[in-house]
Formats: sequence, C-alpha cells, structure tokens
Amino acid sequence: MKTTYRAMQVGFANPLELVERPTPKPGAGEVLIEVDACGVCGADAADIDNANPDLHPPRVPGHEVVGHIAAVGDGVPSMWKLGQRVGVGRKGGHCGECQQCRRGEFQLCPNQPILGASCDGGYAEMMIARATGLVAIPDELSSTEAAPILCAGIATFNALKKSGAQAGDTVAIYGVGGLGHMALQYARKMGFKVVAIGRGKDIEQDALALGAHVYLDTNTDAVVERLQQMGGAQAIVSTVGSADAISTVMPALAPQGRLVLLGTGKVPLTVSPGMMVGGERSIVGSITGSAYENERTLNFSVLADVRPQIETMPLEKANEAVRKMRSGEVKFRMVLTMGNGG
Amino acid sequence: MKTTYRAMQVGFANPLELVERPTPKPGAGEVLIEVDACGVCGADAADIDNANPDLHPPRVPGHEVVGHIAAVGDGVPSMWKLGQRVGVGRKGGHCGECQQCRRGEFQLCPNQPILGASCDGGYAEMMIARATGLVAIPDELSSTEAAPILCAGIATFNALKKSGAQAGDTVAIYGVGGLGHMALQYARKMGFKVVAIGRGKDIEQDALALGAHVYLDTNTDAVVERLQQMGGAQAIVSTVGSADAISTVMPALAPQGRLVLLGTGKVPLTVSPGMMVGGERSIVGSITGSAYENERTLNFSVLADVRPQIETMPLEKANEAVRKMRSGEVKFRMVLTMGNGG
Amino acid sequence: MKTTYRAMQVGFANPLELVERPTPKPGAGEVLIEVDACGVCGADAADIDNANPDLHPPRVPGHEVVGHIAAVGDGVPSMWKLGQRVGVGRKGGHCGECQQCRRGEFQLCPNQPILGASCDGGYAEMMIARATGLVAIPDELSSTEAAPILCAGIATFNALKKSGAQAGDTVAIYGVGGLGHMALQYARKMGFKVVAIGRGKDIEQDALALGAHVYLDTNTDAVVERLQQMGGAQAIVSTVGSADAISTVMPALAPQGRLVLLGTGKVPLTVSPGMMVGGERSIVGSITGSAYENERTLNFSVLADVRPQIETMPLEKANEAVRKMRSGEVKFRMVLTMGNGG
Amino acid sequence: MKTTYRAMQVGFANPLELVERPTPKPGAGEVLIEVDACGVCGADAADIDNANPDLHPPRVPGHEVVGHIAAVGDGVPSMWKLGQRVGVGRKGGHCGECQQCRRGEFQLCPNQPILGASCDGGYAEMMIARATGLVAIPDELSSTEAAPILCAGIATFNALKKSGAQAGDTVAIYGVGGLGHMALQYARKMGFKVVAIGRGKDIEQDALALGAHVYLDTNTDAVVERLQQMGGAQAIVSTVGSADAISTVMPALAPQGRLVLLGTGKVPLTVSPGMMVGGERSIVGSITGSAYENERTLNFSVLADVRPQIETMPLEKANEAVRKMRSGEVKFRMVLTMGNGG
Repeated sequence: MKTTYRAMQVGFANPLELVERPTPKPGAGEVLIEVDACGVCGADAADIDNANPDLHPPRVPGHEVVGHIAAVGDGVPSMWKLGQRVGVGRKGGHCGECQQCRRGEFQLCPNQPILGASCDGGYAEMMIARATGLVAIPDELSSTEAAPILCAGIATFNALKKSGAQAGDTVAIYGVGGLGHMALQYARKMGFKVVAIGRGKDIEQDALALGAHVYLDTNTDAVVERLQQMGGAQAIVSTVGSADAISTVMPALAPQGRLVLLGTGKVPLTVSPGMMVGGERSIVGSITGSAYENERTLNFSVLADVRPQIETMPLEKANEAVRKMRSGEVKFRMVLTMGNGG
Repeated sequence: MKTTYRAMQVGFANPLELVERPTPKPGAGEVLIEVDACGVCGADAADIDNANPDLHPPRVPGHEVVGHIAAVGDGVPSMWKLGQRVGVGRKGGHCGECQQCRRGEFQLCPNQPILGASCDGGYAEMMIARATGLVAIPDELSSTEAAPILCAGIATFNALKKSGAQAGDTVAIYGVGGLGHMALQYARKMGFKVVAIGRGKDIEQDALALGAHVYLDTNTDAVVERLQQMGGAQAIVSTVGSADAISTVMPALAPQGRLVLLGTGKVPLTVSPGMMVGGERSIVGSITGSAYENERTLNFSVLADVRPQIETMPLEKANEAVRKMRSGEVKFRMVLTMGNGG
Repeated sequence: MKTTYRAMQVGFANPLELVERPTPKPGAGEVLIEVDACGVCGADAADIDNANPDLHPPRVPGHEVVGHIAAVGDGVPSMWKLGQRVGVGRKGGHCGECQQCRRGEFQLCPNQPILGASCDGGYAEMMIARATGLVAIPDELSSTEAAPILCAGIATFNALKKSGAQAGDTVAIYGVGGLGHMALQYARKMGFKVVAIGRGKDIEQDALALGAHVYLDTNTDAVVERLQQMGGAQAIVSTVGSADAISTVMPALAPQGRLVLLGTGKVPLTVSPGMMVGGERSIVGSITGSAYENERTLNFSVLADVRPQIETMPLEKANEAVRKMRSGEVKFRMVLTMGNGG
Repeated sequence: MKTTYRAMQVGFANPLELVERPTPKPGAGEVLIEVDACGVCGADAADIDNANPDLHPPRVPGHEVVGHIAAVGDGVPSMWKLGQRVGVGRKGGHCGECQQCRRGEFQLCPNQPILGASCDGGYAEMMIARATGLVAIPDELSSTEAAPILCAGIATFNALKKSGAQAGDTVAIYGVGGLGHMALQYARKMGFKVVAIGRGKDIEQDALALGAHVYLDTNTDAVVERLQQMGGAQAIVSTVGSADAISTVMPALAPQGRLVLLGTGKVPLTVSPGMMVGGERSIVGSITGSAYENERTLNFSVLADVRPQIETMPLEKANEAVRKMRSGEVKFRMVLTMGNGG
C-alpha cells in the first residue's frame, strides 16, 4: 500500500486544493478504502462553500464513494474482507447504541459521521470508513455506475417506497437532474404512471427516455391543471430545492395524495391547511437510508436494469466537475475517478 | 306532525333570525328529522358571518345534529326507521357514484351537501337529511351528549387514528377547546402519553382532569424544549387555527413524528424542509369522516366512557350561544336544544 | 334489440345446454348487457358441476363478462350510458347499505349477486347486471382481452398489492395457469424479483417469457431449499388449489414473509405455528376486489402492457371450452365469444 | 462480589438441582448481572424437560430476569453502568451483523443466545448477559413485577400492536393465564372492546377484573356464535398451545380480522382457505420483541398502570414453582426471588 495518497480538500478558500496526505490506519470498527470512484452530488456544493456549519476545514468532500477495502481495523465484522468492493453514502455508519439505533432506524442515528461534512469523504484516493456504514457492491455494477446510486439512487428509491403510491398510481417526479433522472427510472420500474416535471423543452426527450409517460414543462404547461385532469398525483417526489416551486405544485395532489420532500433548502415551504385537510393530503420528509437499504437499492438497480447516466473526470479535475454540476450542464451525474480501476 | 317549524337562519345581516317555515317532505333518499339537539361548532362562525363562499342565504347553520326520524322518503334503506334516533355531521351524505365513493372514501365525496353551508343544518326544529349521511345513535348517549361527537368527536378520534402513534407514544394535543377536550379524552383512552398544550393556567386543571398526563402553557412554558426533553412527540394533533402557532410547535416532533392538521384556516403554514427531511417527519390533513366512522366514534365514546362537557341553551338563544362560543367562554361545547326532548 | 337471446345453462344434468330465452328488461339499478366475451374460469367448474350450494339451476355460468349496455334501468347513475362497453366480474354489485358497504369494503358485501352462482352470468348473449358491479373498459383492450382481467387479473393484481412485498423483494407465484400467468406479468411490472413455481419442464419457457426471473419445477427442484438459498420469499402468491402443496411450500417464506391465498379449496391447510411465530410470518386471504379496483386493474394492464394469453371459442362450444380448461390444455385462458363483435 | 453463586440447573435428570458455581467474568460486550428476580414461564417447561433440541445440559433455565449490573465487560456501551437495574428476556441480545440486524429487525436475529436454552438463564443468583439484550427497568416497577413483563408482557403487548385492531374494535384474548392476564390488561388500556375466552367459570371474575368487557367460557358458551353476534372479532390473540382449540375459534373473526399466534406448539394448525379468502382474514405469528421494545412495554405498563399478578418463591424452591406453573395453579405468574432485594 502506498504511504501517501492524494485528495482534493476544502481549505480556507475556494477552490478545492489537491493535497498529499499520509495514508492513515483504520481504528477499531473502521476500514481503509482505496477509492475507485466518487459521485459529485448537489449537496457537495454547500460543503465546499463552507456553508455547512458542521464542517471544519480542511475537509475532503464526497459521499458517493466506491472502492476496495485496503485495510481492516479491529472488531470489524467478518463479512467485510480485505480487497472486497464496498461503498459508503452520506451517512457514514450508525453508532448502534443510541435510541434511533436501538429502534432499528439507523438512518436517523445522530451520532454517525456525515461524509464530506463531519468526516473526510471520497474526493480522494483513500478514505477511512466506519464498518456500519459499508455497503456491498454487486458485481453487475461498475464502480462509476454504483457511486451515484449510494445517494441519488437510494434517496429517490426510498422516497418512492414512502410515497404510499401503489402500482398504477400517478407519481410525479419534480426535477429532472441528478436525483430526478434516477427517480424516473425507478418509478417506471415500480409500475407507476410516471409524470416528469421539468423546466424547458430541452430535457423532454431525456425524461421520456428515462421512463416518464408524460413530460410537463413548468415554463409552458399549467402543471397543476394538467395533473388534475389526469385525476391528480397520488404522489409527488420533489427533488428541487426551491420552496416556492414546491408550494406551487402541491395542489396537483389527488385526494389522499402525498408530497415526498428530499431537499433541505433553508427557505420554508408554505402549505395551505385547507388543501391538506379537505383532501386528507400529506407531506413527508425522506432521508437517504441505511447501509442495508443502500444494498437493496443497488440490487434493485441490477434487477430492474436502472443505471445512472454519468460523465467521469479524474480526481484532480474536481473543481471543474463541481463547476459543471453547479451549472446544470451534466447529464445527469458527474463521477470522479481515482485511477484505481473499477 | 306539525305543519311548520322554527329555525334560526342566516339572513342577509347578522344576527341569526328566528323564522317559521313550512315543514318539508323528504325527497327520494332523504329523511325528515325532528331535531333534539344541535352542537355549536367553531366552523359555524364562518357560515354565520357569510364568510363561506359556498353559502347562499337564507341558510340554517348547524352540523352536529341529533333527532328522530319523522318521515322517510322513497328508496331509503330499511335500516332507517320512523321514530329512530339518528344524527348527521358536517358531511351530509355521500353520492355513492363518484370516484371517491367508488373507492370507498365517502368522506372525500365532493358531491355531498355540507350542513349549514350548502344545505340547511340543525339550528332548527326540523331538518331534511340524506340517508347516506345518517348516523345511528347508541342508547347510552343522550342527544345533547351525542351531538358534539358528530363533529368535534369524530374529527379528533379519526385524527388520533391517523397519527401513526402507538400505545405508549407521546401524543400532544394542541388546543384545549371544543375539539381539544374530546381529543384529550380519546387520546388517554387509546393508551397514549398525553400532553395538552394550551394557553394560560386557567385550563390546566381541566386538561389534566380530561386525561392529559402533562399540561404545557404556551404563555410560560418552552413547549418545544419540554417536549423534546420527553423524547419528542410521536404525534401532535393540532386543533388550533393559527398557522403561526402550528409552525412554532412543529419542532417538538420526535424523529418520524407526525403533525395532524384539523383546522382549515386561510393563512398558510410555514414548514422547514430540513426538519421534515432530516427527521423523516410528516404532516397529514384529517377531515372528520364517514357516517360509519361517526358510529364507530359514538360506540367508542360509550365503550371508553368519553363524553363532551356541554352547556345547553334553547334554540331561540342561538345568537347568545354563538357569542359564547366565539369568546371562548364555553366549557367546552355549547349545544342548542329544541324542546323535543332527548 | 332482439327479443330472445341464446345462453348455455346449467340444467339438472351435465353438460351445459344451449337454450333460447326471452330478453329481460333491467330492473331498478340494473342494466342489460349485450355480451361480447366471457372468460372461462376455474371457479366455473364447481358451478357447472352443481357443487356450489348457492346455485339453483337452471343457471348460466360465467363471471368474466364484457359487453355493451343495451338497456338502462331506473336509478342507474348517469356515468353508465347506453352503448357503453362495460364488464362484470364474479362479485355482481354491492348493496351499498350493509356494514361492509358502509365501511367502503364493497368486495366483502354479503348481499351482492355472485355471477354464475346466485345469478345468471356471461355464458350468454345477454345478461342483466347491477350498476354497482359495472366496470368501465379502456379502449386499449379488446373485449376478449379484457374479460379474463375481471377475475384472473384483479385476483392476482390485488393479491400482489396485499402481499406486503416492496420493489426488489422476491415474490414467488405458485401455479402457472389462468391466474398464475397474469400474476407473473403483474409481479414483473411491479418491480419484484419473480419466481415461478410450476409442475414440469413444459411450462418453463412460458413462465420466463411471462416475466419470471427464475422457474422452479416442483417435480425436480427442491423448491423450499432453492428459495431459501435466495434469502426466502417475502411473499408467495398461491394460485393452486391443493392444500398439501401450499403447506409444503410455506417454509420457503423469508422472515416476516407472507403467503397470500387465492383459492378456496375445501381441504384445510396445515400450518406450523413455530414457523409462523419464530419468523413472524403471515398468511392472508385475498378476494378479487371491487368494481373500482377492477378498473384500476384494467388501467394498470394498459399502462404496463399486461395481457392475458387467450384462446377463443364461440358460445355454443362452451362445453368443449370447459373441458379444455379442466384438463389444463389451455394456454392460458379460454374466452367464449358471442358473435357480437368486441 | 461473591466468588461463587447458587443456581438451579437442568442436569441429566429431573428435577432441577441446586448447584454452586464460581462467579464468572463478563467477556467483551457482556455484563454480569446479580439477579433479583426471575419469572417462571410456560416455555421453561420444555427447557427443563430437555425437550428443547438446542439445550445441552447442564443449563440454567429462566428468561424473565431482573437484577443489577455487577460487572461490565469491554466494549459495553456507556449507557449501561455498574449497579444499574436491568432485565433480559428470552432473546439474549442480537449480533448486530446479520441480515436481520442490518434490517433493524433485531428480534429475528438468528445469532442471539436464547436464555435458558442456548445459554444460562435467570434461575440463579448471577448471570452473564450480552449488552445488546439489556433492558432498562423503570423505577416505578419492583423487580418481581418487572420480570414477567420481559416475556409475558412484551409478547402480548407486541401481539396487540400487530393485530391491526384499532380503538373500539373487538379483540378476543384466548387463554387467561400467564400471558392472557397481561393481554387483557393491555388490550383494555389500548381502547379495545375486550373479550376474554377461557375454560371454566372459576376464572370469569378475574378476567373481568383484569379488563375484559365480556367473558366467554369454552365449556359452556358457543364462542364463535357469541363473537359473531357481536360483529366478529377484528383480532384474536391466541395465548393457548392447542392447535385444535385455535382452529376452532378462528371462524369468530370478523371480515378482515386477524388471528395473532403467540404459541409455538408442535401440532400444526388447520385453516380453512375459504374462510380466509372469502373474508380476507389473516394469521400472523408474533415473537416477543427487541430489547428496545421491551423498554417500551415496561414504560407502557407504568403509564397505563398494568402489572402482572404474581406469586413469589425463593430460588431454591424452583422445582415447586415449576410444578405449580405446570398445573395451572398460579394466578397468574410465578416469580423466583434470589434474596438480593429488588
């Protein structure tokens, strides 16, 4: 194993800086991962901008990490073996001792590291990870394909499961970007009538190819009216950040329909109580999920032939990759590669 | 049967006016009810003030109606018999033909009359009602006791069932008035740890006597902190109208906790997406319920010995009764009586 | 309209006899249907054999009926129009008044006619049907395609919805016949990992073509072991009649797995309490469903491109059609046609 | 701490023998408990009779254990402190690594020790326990009161939660013994209409005092008919071992009613498919639950004032205690005390 490794880190000023660091040893319950690939998620932007109060630089961003186990610390379960291909998502591994863990709701454990924010993430050749956060990667997926599934994939797959929608129901996916392009594919393969809501005509063909039965353009279509003509949406999965945009689309819900929120923007949502009560509608927040659920998401992606559409760049071009992600130029997910293969 | 009956009606100016009308005959699928008692609900205020756009005066308010069947129209199911004691709530009887009815979700039928708004209600000695809206009244309840259960009772009982809370969970009831005083009793009898949230010390002893384990005063207690010290509320049932007040208390929800909305105020709620997503919290609107569910609510009230606390006034004092309801002087529900017995 | 119509009826001896009857007028709440097509279901066998105690001959079998409305009785909702194409399944229309109907659980209404058993069914050119049992047929489906969906389709689609399985879960379909061949298609389109369990190698290619990921042959495969190697089945949908066969396969359930029963054979199932309790497993019975759910099933079939595989025969060959159905020669559903088009 | 401790152990012949053993040290992830009290459960009988194939003598029975932490092994979470009062139930602590644990379903972990069967239990002054199996005991409960809640309590409380019954529904508790007497109390405090089913008149007054609204005697009452006259049971929680008895009572379920099995007798249940399918009825097996759920059960017992009715005997009289439990003389739970206080 190399004694040093390269990483792109958040320093005290933009942009990310390429540094060389000594290779660490995994502590108890930890492994060292030699990183193959790391997705560039929208949530990285706040980390990189130092807008995240939990983040104290220097810090390596990145929370869609796939690589191989290069060293195993004490007390790591025997299911995790040297050389095995594994991944880690935003939630870096539950503590196993808090109330949420004892309830079995690991995704809500407040004591787990948040990759790229409270601990170093995957914009690097090496990374330390807690064993409880590890995700086994199926052979059918390349590392660059698997990486975005660990956040954009699980977030949308679990959101659809929590949407309450049943096969045949109308499910609208709001936003056709990194998350939305996964949501469209999953929704189609789960048997929903899929409506993509995006901005502009450019994205229409992509949305339909990804699985949408119908595309609605917020620039030109009366989205709420169109959905209500279809009987209303039993679920809307919102992948967009704008609170105003979300509030505007809510009246498209069918009676007993549910809005599933994924984004955590700072601007509050405004909600009409009359619309909620009169139609028994609901809003639910959905977080990514546990390591086990990440494996379920990967396995479903293999089973149903769902793949992220990606562009790749080498680690050292991370600043360029982040710029493209921010500008919305990417179709649909940027993934950094470390030259380790995969 | 008398050929005329007295009613208090909304005219073109306040206050309600006492009128005498010819006794109508029930049409197909309808019955004539000789009214015993009618509760005075907060929702009556908007009807009386002509603030309800669906209401075209003259109109008789009142949607917590209990009486006896005085005449039966054609095609009424044989389960409804002359002389039988029955009730009607806000939702005046589903159509049986629309999509919501064919789904079995009668409470969402858009074609049903709304008592006191789109059809005449129970501030009267006689009332016409659709058979699909009729509710059988158990012998164990007097008519004045049963009346408030048909709206304040079912609204809160069904809200608690939709709260997702399980026996032993902490459930907060926000507001200790007409609805809240029923919610506290039901919540206690369903096995929840019950927290009443009210304004002022006056109401504390009542809240505890009604079933609250803990009382929190919004004037003096840090409600969110107190609830979070208890582990957070798995559910908050909000009976208050103020959107600001509701938004303020939402952070008291436990992870995966649910806010159940009952009120339909015009001011929008503001909701933090981060709080919803990070803790997988949810908000759900809850409407009263179907006629069958109203019978379940009455039967549970008998089984668990839950009763509204009421003050009664004769029909002709309806203006005074409404005034007391508006001012919050009533503990906890005003009921009009028609002198028909009951 | 013709003044008489032809029907194949159950008399006092086998086989079915072709008779000519006067065309009836629909009563209140009824319509007259000019039948296009009627599926031949396994449940018809008991009706034809007079093994059904509710059946008093003469009686016309058939409960997968599609045709056009030829006359409308009094009080039928305006949504049903002369000339409209409609269907009826086994449950002939709920009463709207009993406890199950008032709960909104129409499929459990004990007062509805059972087509082919307590009322005449669709082995005929004309049929009287209750309006509450009517099902709108989407234009995308021919009448012969739609017919089997009204029983074999809804039975399996609803069973899969009640199975508790989520996208990606392993769902086994036991039996590859009239019901099973629909279940395989639906299960695949709902995102499950689909395992077909059948008898013999003949059916393997069909099962895989219909949507199974894996085929297990009860003649040669150790079904329970094979499924347990895959992690166990989160759900088994049993379309077979043999209680012994079902009991044998139950240990293939994963922890918290659910067996969904569709058949109503007379021989009791034997169930190991230890297997149920130790793994928190469950068994649930599933009946076809309501008219509204039948429309949902048809719409899903259109959306997800699910179609029954059928053979057709003219009405007068009903005895031959039934013989082929009994012998298992049909792939996979026999449908009678009436020469009315469709 | 004493260097030796006394235990009642299963040897190679009945009865239990009193032995003195050296006090062990807790290993990694374990604690040593100085036992206060241990309940005598029906499941102990099979352990003591060597009928349990997982049990290799010598073995100490007992799995309703309450005591104080006397020594703490390495790696035990800091929430468990020396001197703290804790309990352990039948499931001795999940592994945290298997598929069921990674799903958060700890009660299904196949790698956990089973107290009194695969590891030594609580018929002893000292016991080694895994930290993941530990349960915090509320101050409001004495050790002898808390002990039976750890198995008889959680088994019935969780069964009622899994029953699908809602407040006001009719729930029948079959069997009025160690488990049944807890189920009756919980069911009453959760808002159900509670029907106790027992054998003989002797137990009637006890059943009603414990919370039953109605008592049915299998010797003299037509149980199925009586329950069906009440509308059927939405749930039956069966605490009895006899498969025949359970099969006999199943037809008392209402449509969509659910039978919850707790016992794991060797004789298979026989189930009518027609009754299951025609009424969409279900059967579900329910195991005790996780350590966290055991704390929820204890807390609910405090909140709702539910207590086991117990008789106590000193450890050395374990054979007499077991004899009384087997004979059904106990009302309703026998608890061994170790002289450690509590």
